Amino acid sequence: MTLPVEYADIEAAADRIAPYVHRTPVFTSSVLDRELGACVFFKAENLQKVGAFKARGATNAILQLPDDVPGVVTHSSGNHGQAIAYAAAIRDLPAWIVMPRTAPQLKIEAVRSYGAEVVLCDHADREPTAADVAERTGAALVHPFDNSNVIAGQGTATLELVDQVEGLDVVVAPIGGGGLLSGAATVGAAQDPVIRVIGAEPFAVDEAFRSLRSGRRLGGVVDPVTVADGLLTGIGARPFAILTALEAEVIRVTEASILKAALFFLQRMKLVVEPSGATPLAALRTEPERFSGRRVGVIISGGNTDLSWLEAARRL
Amino acid sequence: MTLPVEYADIEAAADRIAPYVHRTPVFTSSVLDRELGACVFFKAENLQKVGAFKARGATNAILQLPDDVPGVVTHSSGNHGQAIAYAAAIRDLPAWIVMPRTAPQLKIEAVRSYGAEVVLCDHADREPTAADVAERTGAALVHPFDNSNVIAGQGTATLELVDQVEGLDVVVAPIGGGGLLSGAATVGAAQDPVIRVIGAEPFAVDEAFRSLRSGRRLGGVVDPVTVADGLLTGIGARPFAILTALEAEVIRVTEASILKAALFFLQRMKLVVEPSGATPLAALRTEPERFSGRRVGVIISGGNTDLSWLEAARRL
Repeated sequence: MTLPVEYADIEAAADRIAPYVHRTPVFTSSVLDRELGACVFFKAENLQKVGAFKARGATNAILQLPDDVPGVVTHSSGNHGQAIAYAAAIRDLPAWIVMPRTAPQLKIEAVRSYGAEVVLCDHADREPTAADVAERTGAALVHPFDNSNVIAGQGTATLELVDQVEGLDVVVAPIGGGGLLSGAATVGAAQDPVIRVIGAEPFAVDEAFRSLRSGRRLGGVVDPVTVADGLLTGIGARPFAILTALEAEVIRVTEASILKAALFFLQRMKLVVEPSGATPLAALRTEPERFSGRRVGVIISGGNTDLSWLEAARRL
Repeated sequence: MTLPVEYADIEAAADRIAPYVHRTPVFTSSVLDRELGACVFFKAENLQKVGAFKARGATNAILQLPDDVPGVVTHSSGNHGQAIAYAAAIRDLPAWIVMPRTAPQLKIEAVRSYGAEVVLCDHADREPTAADVAERTGAALVHPFDNSNVIAGQGTATLELVDQVEGLDVVVAPIGGGGLLSGAATVGAAQDPVIRVIGAEPFAVDEAFRSLRSGRRLGGVVDPVTVADGLLTGIGARPFAILTALEAEVIRVTEASILKAALFFLQRMKLVVEPSGATPLAALRTEPERFSGRRVGVIISGGNTDLSWLEAARRL
């Protein structure tokens, strides 16, 4: 079966985006290794350009748009919006980022700081608004995860990690739309021996877990509430196909475990990690027997957070 | 003139401590470089063992104690206490850390977590209490900065930085007792061309600035109040001798500028940096004309903070 993304696509993406993204460092914690009885290697994509792995996929996609493309458009109130704004600037392309009126001013300003134009609309109108912009301007729509070039770009985080750390048994990454995890799975499947991948997903938005278990791509949870605001979205068609074929699994985590994990990064590892990026550590602690004695890679997906959860985490 | 520490001592220290400390990464910020019109390279010692560069000096000193030393003692409520506890454990030596009764419970527990014994006393009694412990147990006293082996160990942070970043013009580091900065100056003076070093010091505890300007080692400020709790101490005799001979300078910074710098690390660079460690960035912004067009190395000294200053920083 041909999958939407091949290992070679990820290798090519790594060469393509290398001048524009960081090779992020890998960190360990002896305290955590003792706690878990495992060797855990954290790939710090919170220290990536725009503060998240999303810079990889956006850059890989935008660098492959035709020479005469008049611009780029996407709808995202989160890290993908900033990543598209960042990557468009590399090619001096105009970028339109459709965001809900309710988006935090900080995020709106971050997108504007890269020179992109922010188009505000009602939350429910995001997709048609982006389509309108695309029609009016001719801009190319770059989907946050259901796009093979984006997935290939995200896969480069795991490609680097397996180069930086020998002998990994498993890689754990957050799953929202599935771009990051399906890229990781593609890299893992190409290793010898194969490296398994496991997604980390909040119970509150567990449609990736249920979709992969049932073999049917389910719709997103209605009115989801989770501190992991980067994982609110349902799993995409391409990521679903890849993750199903490569037999990825998902561990679900509670909100409290996410906050405790984010606080661990802050207090013990001196890293600002957004709650979505802390879900893999929460997963390790939720089902530690699956990782005992193993060499575990973890993708810390991002660090864009206002730390508004800090007090709640301290009270746990 | 013979100085208390030579460049060769720092090279030897680097080999000695390499198995026990991290080679910390160096980070940049394109936003900051645009703001300052400079290229700034941050050496992230907040990601060092025990969360601070102090692990370097403590390890270098303790590894050189005689085989039959019965233990180690020091007085420090801060990072040096943790560092001594950490380094003593490498050699399976007992460690006694004298701390004031008023020290935060978190710091006391951190020291104990490395297996050291905490000896609580009144703040004013710290030195005699440590001397008592030394006399009673035979433990060797390792001073936090007025010790050549400690200074040589701290110098390894700058030795790594000049290896990681070519062509630095200047290195900026916090100055409290002066161990870190005098190590940096020793490394800088041995480069060709020479790399100048500049200390960053709060106005509130500016006796290093005044001592170096006047050529006389002045006593510490009485009842000092600064958010940079790692820099409360007066400059040591050995650091003063080195910094005077090598013509180091000091830039003084306000409390507000320290908080803004710490917030920049948290929000933009996703790094937890303690206020003391943020003073060099405050210094760059205080006298930017001294760094314009230069390649500037900065030692982020540590990341041990409970973030209790966060709300105050946000209100600035």
